[in-house]
Amino acid sequence: MPVEESMKPEDVIRARSLIQEHIFRTPLLRSTDLSDRAGQPAFLKAENLQITGSFKARGALHRLASLTSQERANGVITFSAGNHALALAWAAHQAGVPAIVVMPETADPSKVRGAKVYGATVIQTPDFVLVARSLQADRGLTLVHPFDEPAIIAGQGTLGLEVIEDLPAAGTIVIGIGGGGLIAGCALAIRATHPNTRIIGVEPEGANTMALSMAEGRAMSIAQVNTIADGLAPPFAGALTYSIIRDMVDDVVVISDEEIVEGMRFLFESAHLVAEPAGAAATSAVLSGAVTAKGPLVAVISGGNISLERFKQLV
Amino acid sequence: MPVEESMKPEDVIRARSLIQEHIFRTPLLRSTDLSDRAGQPAFLKAENLQITGSFKARGALHRLASLTSQERANGVITFSAGNHALALAWAAHQAGVPAIVVMPETADPSKVRGAKVYGATVIQTPDFVLVARSLQADRGLTLVHPFDEPAIIAGQGTLGLEVIEDLPAAGTIVIGIGGGGLIAGCALAIRATHPNTRIIGVEPEGANTMALSMAEGRAMSIAQVNTIADGLAPPFAGALTYSIIRDMVDDVVVISDEEIVEGMRFLFESAHLVAEPAGAAATSAVLSGAVTAKGPLVAVISGGNISLERFKQLV
Repeated sequence: MPVEESMKPEDVIRARSLIQEHIFRTPLLRSTDLSDRAGQPAFLKAENLQITGSFKARGALHRLASLTSQERANGVITFSAGNHALALAWAAHQAGVPAIVVMPETADPSKVRGAKVYGATVIQTPDFVLVARSLQADRGLTLVHPFDEPAIIAGQGTLGLEVIEDLPAAGTIVIGIGGGGLIAGCALAIRATHPNTRIIGVEPEGANTMALSMAEGRAMSIAQVNTIADGLAPPFAGALTYSIIRDMVDDVVVISDEEIVEGMRFLFESAHLVAEPAGAAATSAVLSGAVTAKGPLVAVISGGNISLERFKQLV
Repeated sequence: MPVEESMKPEDVIRARSLIQEHIFRTPLLRSTDLSDRAGQPAFLKAENLQITGSFKARGALHRLASLTSQERANGVITFSAGNHALALAWAAHQAGVPAIVVMPETADPSKVRGAKVYGATVIQTPDFVLVARSLQADRGLTLVHPFDEPAIIAGQGTLGLEVIEDLPAAGTIVIGIGGGGLIAGCALAIRATHPNTRIIGVEPEGANTMALSMAEGRAMSIAQVNTIADGLAPPFAGALTYSIIRDMVDDVVVISDEEIVEGMRFLFESAHLVAEPAGAAATSAVLSGAVTAKGPLVAVISGGNISLERFKQLV
């Protein structure tokens, strides 16, 4: 049986029972201006207010809860453009587990600083995926994948439970796709109980791996990514996330970096929330018209980790 | 009997019953970083997420609820550096009452735009207080004062009720002071039931009217204000707000504009919240050490209305 067929909504419910004491239940905020633009009541799931500044804290903490004592002693490692690294550093600190996080040299300084504050060993290198896999093998560490494993997906899906509890009538839920862990988890959490709620993914033009995978019918990788949304930029779709998204997500739309910046500006001036590019993508897709609201709409602001310097350059 | 002695905590509770369906209950967010800095569990009351972007919506809506039908037909007017103008425009739009708002020429463009969106007649002039009072007299309008009247103070105090319900053990609550309506209302709401909760006001050096009033023992005005915090810059203390603050607020501290900017940066990068200068002042006072936390601490982020251009200039 493929792994995805063994994943069930109950996995997400169980994940929540393990992590909910340690994370925030982030607010679902009604936005008058986004409602006007969407032509439907519209809400922002302000996950940029989550501990560590993104949803990644959910999955990382959940994954660490299932380590054996030997694995805990040996430590964990990951590769990540930033938010997963920061979240794993935090979760490992909470759990008393040594952590190495391998990040690209282009990672946002605020994410690198954050990982260091939580005591992780930070390595920055262009070949961050290869270096992490090599170190893992050499040292007998546990690799905590940024998106493509069941414990991560179930953890991220706890966000979906919160959304649907706060707004059971949600007609359209819009979520950015990097590796696809968040949207896969949310779809898993919601799809069975709310079959008429549309779940829409958003990718940047320059890192459209999941849209490509949907078109090709298999998980694809691309040679080069080119987007300001570092959090949506893994060059490959997960095999597991792809299969869940294929079966449970209604559509994946693609937007430009300029549209992402428009979303960041809107969230700043209208909603008074700081979103990093990846965090703004879902809102941007509503503003640009790439997503049409059917029924009450929720745009997930997945993260807010961006340095002031970079923000000022972009907006 | 002086007016302040006739104001009671029940006024705030009654105000809440009148306005709560139309405003947001803004979240009280735990901040790990602010807790580290304060040495106590620390929370942010994210009132920058309130409708119209500041607490001013509470008082304006409450004041309009008590208009006679003749007053409603004639319309309302106010003078305001911005947030009260915007909030009154919104509340008047909700209530179907014509509104004129008179603002200084230096008002933040985002506040002017907002007031216009809600259909108010906006007048910008250097002599905004005088012009508003003159128009009011000439046209038989109702002046809705930005801070110094009981209905406004009771409305703003509903924020205090939310804070103390969400965190009954609050030891220190820090609130910026412009005219003093917010802190007076919150003190009125909390003081009797929570006598050991310290309530601390914060003013910018360049507009320290309330600190001056406390020192002099009467409501003072100053000839000239000089601060980036337009929302904390009225050149006079209210007679009513002063008397409540004198009796019910534990201390008023003063901070520099540079410290306010530090708070804005902190809220952006650490909490992913957009605060205008006035909105950051309470957090800034904790970061600068001007306020010492005794017990769990709450810093109120009173507003987030600032244009991107101005934000980028300041930070």
